[in-house]
Formats: sequence, C-alpha cells, structure tokens
Amino acid sequence: MGQTMAEGLGQRDDMTVVALVDVNEPRELFGATYVTSVGDLPVDLDAVVDFSLPASVVASAEWCAANGVALIVGATGLTPEQRSFVEAAGERVGVVMAANYSIGAVLSERFAAMAAPYFERVEIIELHHDRKVDAPSGTSLVSAERIRSARSAAGRVTAPEPTERLTIDGARGADAGDGVRIHSVRLPGLLAHQEVLFGSAGEGLTIRHDSYDRQSFVNGVALAISHAVSAPGFTSGIDELL
Amino acid sequence: MGQTMAEGLGQRDDMTVVALVDVNEPRELFGATYVTSVGDLPVDLDAVVDFSLPASVVASAEWCAANGVALIVGATGLTPEQRSFVEAAGERVGVVMAANYSIGAVLSERFAAMAAPYFERVEIIELHHDRKVDAPSGTSLVSAERIRSARSAAGRVTAPEPTERLTIDGARGADAGDGVRIHSVRLPGLLAHQEVLFGSAGEGLTIRHDSYDRQSFVNGVALAISHAVSAPGFTSGIDELL
Amino acid sequence: MGQTMAEGLGQRDDMTVVALVDVNEPRELFGATYVTSVGDLPVDLDAVVDFSLPASVVASAEWCAANGVALIVGATGLTPEQRSFVEAAGERVGVVMAANYSIGAVLSERFAAMAAPYFERVEIIELHHDRKVDAPSGTSLVSAERIRSARSAAGRVTAPEPTERLTIDGARGADAGDGVRIHSVRLPGLLAHQEVLFGSAGEGLTIRHDSYDRQSFVNGVALAISHAVSAPGFTSGIDELL
Amino acid sequence: MGQTMAEGLGQRDDMTVVALVDVNEPRELFGATYVTSVGDLPVDLDAVVDFSLPASVVASAEWCAANGVALIVGATGLTPEQRSFVEAAGERVGVVMAANYSIGAVLSERFAAMAAPYFERVEIIELHHDRKVDAPSGTSLVSAERIRSARSAAGRVTAPEPTERLTIDGARGADAGDGVRIHSVRLPGLLAHQEVLFGSAGEGLTIRHDSYDRQSFVNGVALAISHAVSAPGFTSGIDELL
Repeated sequence: MGQTMAEGLGQRDDMTVVALVDVNEPRELFGATYVTSVGDLPVDLDAVVDFSLPASVVASAEWCAANGVALIVGATGLTPEQRSFVEAAGERVGVVMAANYSIGAVLSERFAAMAAPYFERVEIIELHHDRKVDAPSGTSLVSAERIRSARSAAGRVTAPEPTERLTIDGARGADAGDGVRIHSVRLPGLLAHQEVLFGSAGEGLTIRHDSYDRQSFVNGVALAISHAVSAPGFTSGIDELL
Repeated sequence: MGQTMAEGLGQRDDMTVVALVDVNEPRELFGATYVTSVGDLPVDLDAVVDFSLPASVVASAEWCAANGVALIVGATGLTPEQRSFVEAAGERVGVVMAANYSIGAVLSERFAAMAAPYFERVEIIELHHDRKVDAPSGTSLVSAERIRSARSAAGRVTAPEPTERLTIDGARGADAGDGVRIHSVRLPGLLAHQEVLFGSAGEGLTIRHDSYDRQSFVNGVALAISHAVSAPGFTSGIDELL
Repeated sequence: MGQTMAEGLGQRDDMTVVALVDVNEPRELFGATYVTSVGDLPVDLDAVVDFSLPASVVASAEWCAANGVALIVGATGLTPEQRSFVEAAGERVGVVMAANYSIGAVLSERFAAMAAPYFERVEIIELHHDRKVDAPSGTSLVSAERIRSARSAAGRVTAPEPTERLTIDGARGADAGDGVRIHSVRLPGLLAHQEVLFGSAGEGLTIRHDSYDRQSFVNGVALAISHAVSAPGFTSGIDELL
Repeated sequence: MGQTMAEGLGQRDDMTVVALVDVNEPRELFGATYVTSVGDLPVDLDAVVDFSLPASVVASAEWCAANGVALIVGATGLTPEQRSFVEAAGERVGVVMAANYSIGAVLSERFAAMAAPYFERVEIIELHHDRKVDAPSGTSLVSAERIRSARSAAGRVTAPEPTERLTIDGARGADAGDGVRIHSVRLPGLLAHQEVLFGSAGEGLTIRHDSYDRQSFVNGVALAISHAVSAPGFTSGIDELL
C-alpha cells in the first residue's frame, strides 16, 4: 500500500515524493531518498504519509509533532493508547487519520444519508470477490447505520413489509434495522462494489460505488495532505474535507 | 390482460383482431365483433387467444378442437383434469399453453442455463415492487433450478464458500441448492426485474431481464399464434418456439 | 396528471383532497367536491395544486392570492407575463412552481453536482423509450450544465482525451462541454432513466435515477405543499426544499 | 500474459505446468523447467500454450506438428503466411487459435446473436478506461455485426427512428448499421465492460460482460487444451468449444 501511495502521489504535479521509509530493499522511485526509520527523514518535509502498522504510527506521530510536519495515517486497528498519541500530535501539527481514503466511498455514504429521509424504502446490495469471509461488509453496515440515523432524525419510519411468505430463509437479506436490508453477493472476478437502492412510488434512486484498485486512495490522501499542511488539528476521516 | 392482448395484437401488421369474447360492456377495438361466449365466435378464425379463467379455457379448448381453430392459453392454475382437455385439443389443432409469454424472460432463463456450466459461481438478484409477498420469486426459483440442473449435467460442482462469518443472518441470501444464492429486493417503484450474475477469475457475465409492462406478452403470444396455426400439437411454454 | 396527483395525495394520511377542478365529467374520488372553475372552490382550503395549462395557472394565482391559499404549480411553458402573475401571488401566499417534482431526479442532480469536483472525468448515459424524439434529454443537459459549473467553480479542468481514433462518428456521444459526454439510448420498453458515471484512478461512482411512473411527482408535491402553507414567498423548483 | 497463463493453469487440479519458454531471467513457478526456446522443450508434453509474438508462433507450430503436441495460440496479428503455418500444424495435431479466450465474452456474443431476432431494437454500451484510444471498441463492432447478421437472417428489420431532433451531434452514438447504436464510455478506473441492451414493448433484456483481469483467459485456454489434445484439427476461436 505504501508503494501504491508513493507511486500515485509522485505522479501528481502538485506533490513531490522526497523520501521513503522502508525496512526492505529500496527500489528507485522518483529519485526519492530511502531511509529505514522515520527518525532518519529530513526535517524540511511538508507531510508524512503512514500506511504501515499501528506501532510505527506512534513513532511517526511523535516525530511529526516534534518536527512540525503534517501527518496522514492510513493504518487501522490502533489501540486507544496508540490513537491518543496520534491525536496528541494533532495539537501541534495537522493530522488526518482515516480507515478509507476513497473519495467515491465517502461521497456514496454521504449521498445515501442525504437521500435517506426522502424515500419510502432502501436496500443495500454489496458485491465482493468470493475470498471475503465476512458478510455483510463493514462498509455496508456503516452505510446502513448512517441511513437509519438520517431517517430517524427526520422522523421517517419504514412501513412494515407485507407479511412475508419466505420459501427459503435469507431471501430478503440481512435486516440491519428499521427495514434496511443488506444483500451480500460473493463471486470470483468481482472486486468491491456497493449499491444503495432507494425506492418510492414511481421512482428509484441508486448510488453505486465501484472499487477497482487501491489506487483509488491516492486522491483522498492528496486531499488529506492539502488539508493537514494548512493548520494544526486532528481530523478523523476525510468526510469533512469534501 | 385480455384487453392488453387485443390491443397489442391488433396493432400488428400481420394479425387482425376479428372478435372479442367478453361478458362485460363492450368497447370499440379495431372494429372487432363482441360476443359473450366462445360458442358465438365465427368459425373461420385462425386462432383463439384465451387469458381468462381455467373454467373458460376448457370451453375454448372444446370449441377450438371442434372447429379446427388454433388455441393459445395464458391462464394458469388449471387442474389436471382441465389441463387434459387442453392437451386433448392439441391432437386436433395447434395449442400453445404457457405461464409466461415474455420472450425476454424465456431467453434469460435459456442463456442462464447455457452459461451455468462455464462459471465458478452464480448468484441471482431479483427485484420487485414491495407489494409482492413471496420471496424468492417463482421465476428466480425456476432459474436457479435450471442453472443447477445444467451445472449438474456438466459435472460442474460449486466449491464450498470460505467459512462464513455472518454478522447478521440472511446476508448471503437464500441458498437454492449447489451454492446458487437468491437475493430478493423489494422496493416501491420497482416493477419486475431479475439479474443472474456469473463469476469466474477475472470476469463476470450478467443477464438481466426487466419487465415494465404486460405488453411484453404480446410478442410471445404472436409467436405462439404463428406456431399454433401451422400444425396440430400441444406445446407447453414458448421456450421451444424460440 | 391532475388525476394522478389527486389520487396520490388523497392516499396520504397527512392530506385531504377537498375539491377537484375539472371541466370534464366528474368521477368519485375520496368524496371530493367537483367544481368547474377555480373561482368556485371553497375559500377555507390550505393549498391549490395546479397541473393544468398556463392560462389557467394565472386564474389560480389570482384566486389564491386573493383568498390566502397556498399554490403549487406544475404547469410548464408559461410566458414571462404569465409567470409574473404567479410570482406576484408569492408576495401574498406561499407559492412553489417547478418543472419536475420528482425528488429522486432533484437529488440525483444535486449529488452529481456535489461529486463533480472530485473526479477526473464524468459521462452521462440517459435511456428513454424510443418515441422520445429529442436527444440528449433536457434533464441530461441540465445535469451536464450543473456538473460543468461545479467543476469550474472548483477549478477542476478535465484533461484532454488521448487523440481519438473514431471508426464511426458519434461513438463518444455528445460533448456537452468540458469533456462531459452524454450518450442517449432509445429503446422500446424503457421509461425514463439516467446514469451519471464518475471515474478516477481505481474507482467509479454512479448515480442512477429511474422514473417508472408519474406517481413519482406525488411526494414532491406533498413536500411543496408543506412548505407553501407555512409562509408567503415564491419558490422556483423543489431543490431548496430538500 | 504468458506468466498469467502459467500461474493460472498451474493452479488447476487437472493440469501440470511442465516447462516455461522464456528468454528472460527465470523465476520459480510450480517447479517448472525453464528453457529459452521451444526447441528445448521435452517432447512428452500434451500441449504448448503460446501467447508470444507471431514470429515465435511459427516455430511453435512446426515443433508441435513434428512432435505430436497440441498447440494453443493466443497471439494476434499474424500475417496470412504465418497463419498458414499454424493451420498446417492442425493437420497433424490439435490446434486452437483465438484472439479472445474469455468464456464470458464469447458467451455474451453468442447470447446477443441469439436474442437479436426477437427484439424490436438493440443498442450497445461499451465502457473502457480512458487510455483506450479507439472507439467503438473492436469487441463491440464484432457484437454489432453478429447482431445485424442474426437479425438479417431472421428477416428482422429495425423500424426507422422517429425523426430525431439532435441538439448536440453524437448523442445517439455510432450507427453500426441497421439501427444498432454503439455508445463508447471512457473513464479512468474502468477496465473493460460491455452491455448489449435489447428492448421491445414492455420489456428489456441486457447482457453484460465485465473483464476485470486477464486471468479471465485461463479458463478459456484450459478449455482449448482439453479440446486440442483430443484430436488433430485447426479451430479458430473458442466459440465452437462451448
């Protein structure tokens, strides 16, 4: 992932990849310097992008705070203590930490929440490759929660379904609460796709997001960098940067 | 439905609507004669199209057989005895009886069965308006059965899924056997739609059928008429006419 | 259209259809009174919904203003003078006038404009029945304009395409400016559908709206009524009510 | 491509990758022997799979014919003379040569040709990444030709469109003949996708193929191997193997 980020960011006109932190064998990339630990980075950087493990993120946070360098964190699974180090850095420098840097995914979720109060019903279909073992996907559960929350805030109640005659259990998908159903499709060939389908009398609105490649994170990280270098502060997720 | 058929068939260049059987108030339609029972029809017709109730179909079958007129039956739910009358008429005249005259639906099912042996996995998403009370839809169950049968005949076995971690029951849909999953979406606004999704490493094939209106039956009935007027014989379904 | 509105609004729990203005033969609908001109309406109404011709709208505007009744206008094609009467009514009572009361269509357009600055490219596919004679659709042109405007405001420039090798003219659709392409599909069976497809490296976002039936206007009109009865003022379009 | 094939075929239970021909630095793959030219291959192979350049294919054809080994050719752009060598090998051994080994693509084309006579109209939408410079895609042109040919053979004539009012040229796509329109979408993020949309009164049938990865060729090559090892003969394309 670090490699994908470095390649993607390096191709942009508005950024320069100055140095790469890697414990493995270096390979030539935009003439960037290779160092083996964050402590060896030059201090005149604008920002550090860290997609490594939680333990390394703490070191990055401390170094960035000490040297006045903005920090973008893509690691997930930090302990509360690890997270507190990252948040503390936000008091000194700009810090953005997000689980998902895909702009399309974030906008999809926002649009779904915005549309939620205006339609009679909504269901989600999420489609992934067949090696994915969990269902429903984490993203679809977050979408469902945001939809339910938006409907609830608007006083929108989903009418009960007509008494169902299910000839095979599971046909109507997973009930994520308030009638929001999630259907999880798993097929080889697929990557990561999600459709939120809204329906009212006479019309439908569908918001679909397709993730083909983790290159999709590059634009979101670039957005986070632009934000983080402008002022100190800790930002969780890129939603509010859009 | 009879009205829709008469209007649709009457607009074709290759057919003329001569008479309509209706117990209710007649209304002008292509200058057709109105009669109140099949026995009052002129005997020089080429074909009778009957989308009425099972009991009436028996009378139509007897009249058509006696008068050498082809018969197209759209009624469903006939008892075995009622059905035997229709089949018997097929010994004297051409008879086609089908539950679904939509050419698109029939082709979709055929293509799904043809593709079934060549893909690693297959799932079905069927989407209907929210007044539909049964799930999965009858059509999707027939599709699943044809897919399973085609895979079985080709010796194709669906690999077991990775042990699933279902956080909400039903996410993976209804298991219609041999790993064929059916997902039933119910939303206001929708009409009747079905997607069969095939997946193998690196690719996907999707066959989608959308039913917007029962006008879609007109072309299938016209096809059945063309077939039935050519020779005696009983044909069940329009699949073999395509 | 008036009939569809009356039926749709009458089925809602939060509204009562009190009277219908119709110059034709009345038919029973929720026990509403039939009158032949707006001047004969009872004056204790909350709102008048007018989907008739521009000339009638002027009479409705004058009557509503004089009697303190809110007005919802669905007519299109008003002359500037006719429109000025409707706007003038807005100084006395709440008035909403819109060409499109479909909430899904309005949200689709809004989401497309919101997403526009964040993606490298965008294209529109609009699909309609084959009796539609104009292409691109009016709706797609409005969408394209809003997308271009949002991109321009954000300083987003669409990169030029690689020099195209078009073997048949028209393959790349209509260029609506700044690289926004519109593809118009016309097929029997279809109703009115539009997809806005956004793409960036590694991901895609698609916003699709399906109009199946003009019942879809009922919810938008209900929303307009709720707004118009609350205070005087003229509102053009339902976008700002959402 | 050779690498992808070797990896994909090697993972199958019914095949063993015995040797790899590569002029570059070898890397370990299923314990296969590395040789630098086809002449160094062991002669007890069942089949040779050649996705290299046309010039190399001639050598492979001669070697396979001489040694009784089946041949699968994935190269394109052979001169007629080069092609004649490959066809000549087919007199001695089983040979399959195809431009596209994707089973999904081949089935999509077949289904489109089968459905073509039964629908009033048909249009094609093909969607590719924005680095593709030609439009329409070669695949869509082949699909259009097969559709037109099937309609023509069935005596099906596409009704003329209502006189169009095109406000921007190109909106109705490329006319590939007999009213078959092709719309070419180009967006970053996309891979290679094609939809064939059929429409008749009241219904639609859509056949969609998604190519995510050239892994999709592995199943088609495996099918070709199974066929080629069974008997001598030259087969062009995998269509008739399905």
